[in-house]
Amino acid sequence: MPTQAGISGSQTEGADSIVLSGGYEDDADHGDVLIYTGHGGRDQSTGQQIHDQPFTRGNRALALSKQNGLPVRVIRGSNHDSPYSPPSGYSYDGLYAVEEFWHEVGKSGFEIWRFRLVKIPDKVTTGQEIREEPAGYSVPQRQDMRVSRIVRDSSRARKIKALYDHRCQICGIRLECPAGPYSEAAHIRALGAPHDGPDTEDNILCLCPNHHVLFDNGALYISDDLTINDDVGNRLAVHKDHRIDRRHLAYHRDHLAVVSEPAPL
Amino acid sequence: MPTQAGISGSQTEGADSIVLSGGYEDDADHGDVLIYTGHGGRDQSTGQQIHDQPFTRGNRALALSKQNGLPVRVIRGSNHDSPYSPPSGYSYDGLYAVEEFWHEVGKSGFEIWRFRLVKIPDKVTTGQEIREEPAGYSVPQRQDMRVSRIVRDSSRARKIKALYDHRCQICGIRLECPAGPYSEAAHIRALGAPHDGPDTEDNILCLCPNHHVLFDNGALYISDDLTINDDVGNRLAVHKDHRIDRRHLAYHRDHLAVVSEPAPL
Repeated sequence: MPTQAGISGSQTEGADSIVLSGGYEDDADHGDVLIYTGHGGRDQSTGQQIHDQPFTRGNRALALSKQNGLPVRVIRGSNHDSPYSPPSGYSYDGLYAVEEFWHEVGKSGFEIWRFRLVKIPDKVTTGQEIREEPAGYSVPQRQDMRVSRIVRDSSRARKIKALYDHRCQICGIRLECPAGPYSEAAHIRALGAPHDGPDTEDNILCLCPNHHVLFDNGALYISDDLTINDDVGNRLAVHKDHRIDRRHLAYHRDHLAVVSEPAPL
Repeated sequence: MPTQAGISGSQTEGADSIVLSGGYEDDADHGDVLIYTGHGGRDQSTGQQIHDQPFTRGNRALALSKQNGLPVRVIRGSNHDSPYSPPSGYSYDGLYAVEEFWHEVGKSGFEIWRFRLVKIPDKVTTGQEIREEPAGYSVPQRQDMRVSRIVRDSSRARKIKALYDHRCQICGIRLECPAGPYSEAAHIRALGAPHDGPDTEDNILCLCPNHHVLFDNGALYISDDLTINDDVGNRLAVHKDHRIDRRHLAYHRDHLAVVSEPAPL
């Protein structure tokens, strides 16, 4: 069991869990929504904030969890000053999404890192179909319409992204963010009905967001010899440990890419 | 009132509504989920599919609705062969998200364009706070975690994207997709708590997805003289009709960008 406040996790995958125990003067705990203050810059003996908090270790790992869309476990200790704390010991309070991170001058006068965490409902359980989730429509008019987009990131997807060290297989770019590099996992044969592509490594590419948009919207397709239909005939970069199933490339070409414009009537 | 099957909308904004009336042999209507077949390639007198359907007009407009995350109105006519059709006349059946488009060989032997539309629940109404919506968590473990990301696109956002003709204000790229160009609206001072940035044109940038990721994750920031903190000191391209509020740039620099790394303890 955890015995003190803090953030655990990894510098390449993001934070895994946070323990609320004691806590910062700047923390705010509204139960399902937490404003969590990062660590560092405190005097070891008095606990007073005496320096700016650095964007390192746990602070950076939590920012990476936000960037990668990975949730963290929240554990509250009895000495965490909140009505949501257990009377004694520790309580595991479920998964929270790290929605935002930012910095500000705290009550101490020093810069602190802050994270907004929102609880993921427990009722969302196994076998849930992933699809685009419309959200926040105000009125049935063209203005003010909003739709959400699902970021799928299974363990297979994360493995492929790590294999390429987050370099785009089409253009080679690696987006350098403060919390770590950023890339996206693109499914060649789309997941879900009606395409029912598998979430397997042979159906996943590591792409930058720009090439992901072009690939998913049918602008780009890839031949069996891995040539890309761009102006310069680039080839897809493929790691020696990454086998791509040519049948998925063919499915994408045959159904998802807009390969050529049939003559209009 | 509409009097025949078809797609209405614009070639730059996407489809606005579809009317289900008569219909194609390949259509499928499951009420909240529709598989809609595009138009074109049919013999005018017999209604038989005699050519491939082109990726033009309504077909392209529906694809653009998917690409832009814009919903369409669905109207069913009484002669549409479905248990969800009204006994007579037409019924307005609400907003649907265009989740996917693809092409396949239809029953006729010719290529057809197909669209998967999913109803947006009516209960999602005014004043709904936009935030990241976790979705589809299977088990509280690191594998198989998925999170959705909200794409915000108000009328102001769409106006800014159109003003720049979908060119990124940072790098100038314009992603050319078959249904039309693609860009993203980035809020400088983030929407929603705790930042509470406004959804106004002076707080919106037109960016490519790559620069949107870099901007939102704190890698990039913009000085009051519009210089970008990249290696080459690029300046933000700003249209003469687009006033950017420098206070939002300052907020982004002060709270959202990771401007410099304070010395770790």
